[in-house]
Amino acid sequence: MGTAAGRDRESRDEAPRGFRYGAGASGMRFTGRDDLALIACDGPAAWSGVFTTSSAAGAPVVLARRLLSAGGPLRAVLVNAGVANAGTGRAGLADARRAARLAAQALDVRPEEVLCASTGWVGERVDVGCLAAALPAVLADLAPGGSERVARAILTSDSVPKRVSARCRVDGRQVRLLGVAKGSGMVAPSMATLLAFVTTDAACRPGFLRSLWRDVVGESFNALSIDGETSPSDMAVVLASGAAGNRPLSRRHPDAPAFGAALREVAVELVRRLARDGEGAKKLVVLTVTGARSRGDARRAAAALARSPMVRTAVAGASPAWGRFVAALGASGVPFAVERFGLAAGDAWLVQGGRHQGAAAEAEVRRRLAAEEVHLTVALGRGPGRFTAYTCDLTPDYCAENLDPPLPAPRD
Amino acid sequence: MGTAAGRDRESRDEAPRGFRYGAGASGMRFTGRDDLALIACDGPAAWSGVFTTSSAAGAPVVLARRLLSAGGPLRAVLVNAGVANAGTGRAGLADARRAARLAAQALDVRPEEVLCASTGWVGERVDVGCLAAALPAVLADLAPGGSERVARAILTSDSVPKRVSARCRVDGRQVRLLGVAKGSGMVAPSMATLLAFVTTDAACRPGFLRSLWRDVVGESFNALSIDGETSPSDMAVVLASGAAGNRPLSRRHPDAPAFGAALREVAVELVRRLARDGEGAKKLVVLTVTGARSRGDARRAAAALARSPMVRTAVAGASPAWGRFVAALGASGVPFAVERFGLAAGDAWLVQGGRHQGAAAEAEVRRRLAAEEVHLTVALGRGPGRFTAYTCDLTPDYCAENLDPPLPAPRD
Repeated sequence: MGTAAGRDRESRDEAPRGFRYGAGASGMRFTGRDDLALIACDGPAAWSGVFTTSSAAGAPVVLARRLLSAGGPLRAVLVNAGVANAGTGRAGLADARRAARLAAQALDVRPEEVLCASTGWVGERVDVGCLAAALPAVLADLAPGGSERVARAILTSDSVPKRVSARCRVDGRQVRLLGVAKGSGMVAPSMATLLAFVTTDAACRPGFLRSLWRDVVGESFNALSIDGETSPSDMAVVLASGAAGNRPLSRRHPDAPAFGAALREVAVELVRRLARDGEGAKKLVVLTVTGARSRGDARRAAAALARSPMVRTAVAGASPAWGRFVAALGASGVPFAVERFGLAAGDAWLVQGGRHQGAAAEAEVRRRLAAEEVHLTVALGRGPGRFTAYTCDLTPDYCAENLDPPLPAPRD
Repeated sequence: MGTAAGRDRESRDEAPRGFRYGAGASGMRFTGRDDLALIACDGPAAWSGVFTTSSAAGAPVVLARRLLSAGGPLRAVLVNAGVANAGTGRAGLADARRAARLAAQALDVRPEEVLCASTGWVGERVDVGCLAAALPAVLADLAPGGSERVARAILTSDSVPKRVSARCRVDGRQVRLLGVAKGSGMVAPSMATLLAFVTTDAACRPGFLRSLWRDVVGESFNALSIDGETSPSDMAVVLASGAAGNRPLSRRHPDAPAFGAALREVAVELVRRLARDGEGAKKLVVLTVTGARSRGDARRAAAALARSPMVRTAVAGASPAWGRFVAALGASGVPFAVERFGLAAGDAWLVQGGRHQGAAAEAEVRRRLAAEEVHLTVALGRGPGRFTAYTCDLTPDYCAENLDPPLPAPRD
């Protein structure tokens, strides 16, 4: 890679200029850990977001969509973990508005410059009193180097924080990008998966940022499936402070491709870490469909394979059960002829042109399937369409972890 | 119930007249068990079928669709278990045609009067030599009371055979129905799930049988999901010998409703048994969506809930995690307002009008969720649409069973 993505340095120097990051503990749902995160922008930041496609979208998502269509810049993002504020109806909307007002007052900005995000138990209301009480400590914690604490505070069932940085050059100046994300269950394509926030100090025209972000999310967060579930709380947001001082990026800016590549790199690396940390997961699965008639067909086929429990349990067991790939492809609705079908793990082909490549090939494929990172190629032999999806293996631990999670006490 | 469905008597008297059932062991894939089943009709039988929607449909499905559009009657159904003859291309089609010809010669009927069905490993070819060698024993086994052996011979990963009979009156005569089915993995809605064969001695006009069967399959086999997977081999077929001697049933026959009810009863009871025997399943889940704007919306919502791993693991753990239902409904795309949402297990309501009903209600719901048969009602509060779907709980055993199934030896 030409940039620093994936190196994940702790250094404060890596953080995009123009942002401060802070966290604190509200005690709303978790004890003994931070559950409240704030990203504050020193000035108005251009931004964009892609949100869940759920018709039961949570209150913060409903408000975020409105903010995005209003078109103004952002000054802050407030995130709480543990309570999703979804399935909470009008009361939930009022709670989210109150939370935004509290943060706006504390930062001396306008409420419509504050984006709220929530993740956690669906059906529970945010305790605004807890938020208000915890906010001063979060404000005091704000610092340019605080993104690691933000990455931790937004987690729910994740086992590790996900934080990725990258750099590129725009107008000869160094531009920095830094993303944090969470999500290890209820993750599926066709939505902006769970919570992801990427900050950059690049100056960007809002229209450019919006269309670039849509493209990037399509190849990263929307190419990820953990368990085929879509959460009502999902959002992936990018904020650009402009503190790098470059000429604002637009489609025609000569460094737009470099910036786009860096942004894509951050998003894809976050997705790889999300998949690897999927509930019960032991392996990251990077699954590329090639040879589809179109990119859309490739995407549909890759999504079907990445969602298939039969495919994912086969990867868990390092089993070269290629019939499961055929079955999942058939169910995807993408045109399919077994005579052209191929399947490889890494560069070891198990099936080519519909023919099994023999015992030695199968032994080699079993070895590749036993690795912690499994790269699968599914060839359809029909055209130039290509798409990469991300998932994890499906193990008995996924089911065991989800049997009876601790629930909020019912309100009598 | 007004008929005998579910009582599953062994008695030969229960079998529809005009059919003989037989089984045998081909040794093609399994050892020490029957894997070949034949249903022979004494005369031409009216029939209909609903088939997998997979674009990778197996060879027997491709040929069966052609037989159905040709419109002729059937004289026999030949089923083999262990090898799906799917993902086998043109060679597989030739194999299936050869198998039909062998059975036709043995029974002295025409090849286009023989329906072939296969279930088992995708990507493996049927060994026609094994079939030919085993066929004489299967023919010798044919008997009106042999349906129990047929129900066993068609199994793959199922743990118990599924066989259901029913009776009704048409023109004052007793009409009998008998169904067998298999399938415990790769089962999802929107297809004719796995293999199901229902025989009846009623006389039916072919057009009536076709439209009735489409309706019945829509409420039974296509309302079933075990793991959200669609198999390339699925088919659900009904055959009517006419041996009961009634005036052929048509839409306007006064006893058409009674016959339709009996057929539905057999199909739904088979589906309940398939769900209960799903891979890794400990519980049957009967999930009814009420109050949708339309029946189509109710079906979409029910299918999404029945496919949701989060919902199914919650049932496994007897966990009243109602937020998962909200999330799965939201992802289904069906219009949804939490203020109208209700969730009940049996007649115990956990949520009504979006409000949790308190600790006592939750304790009662936990008790219902711990039963071996769980009846869930999800109320949307928007209209008259209603649909019932069938699934099972998702347990760690599902994943464990699918990690590394025994595979065919690769052909070098």
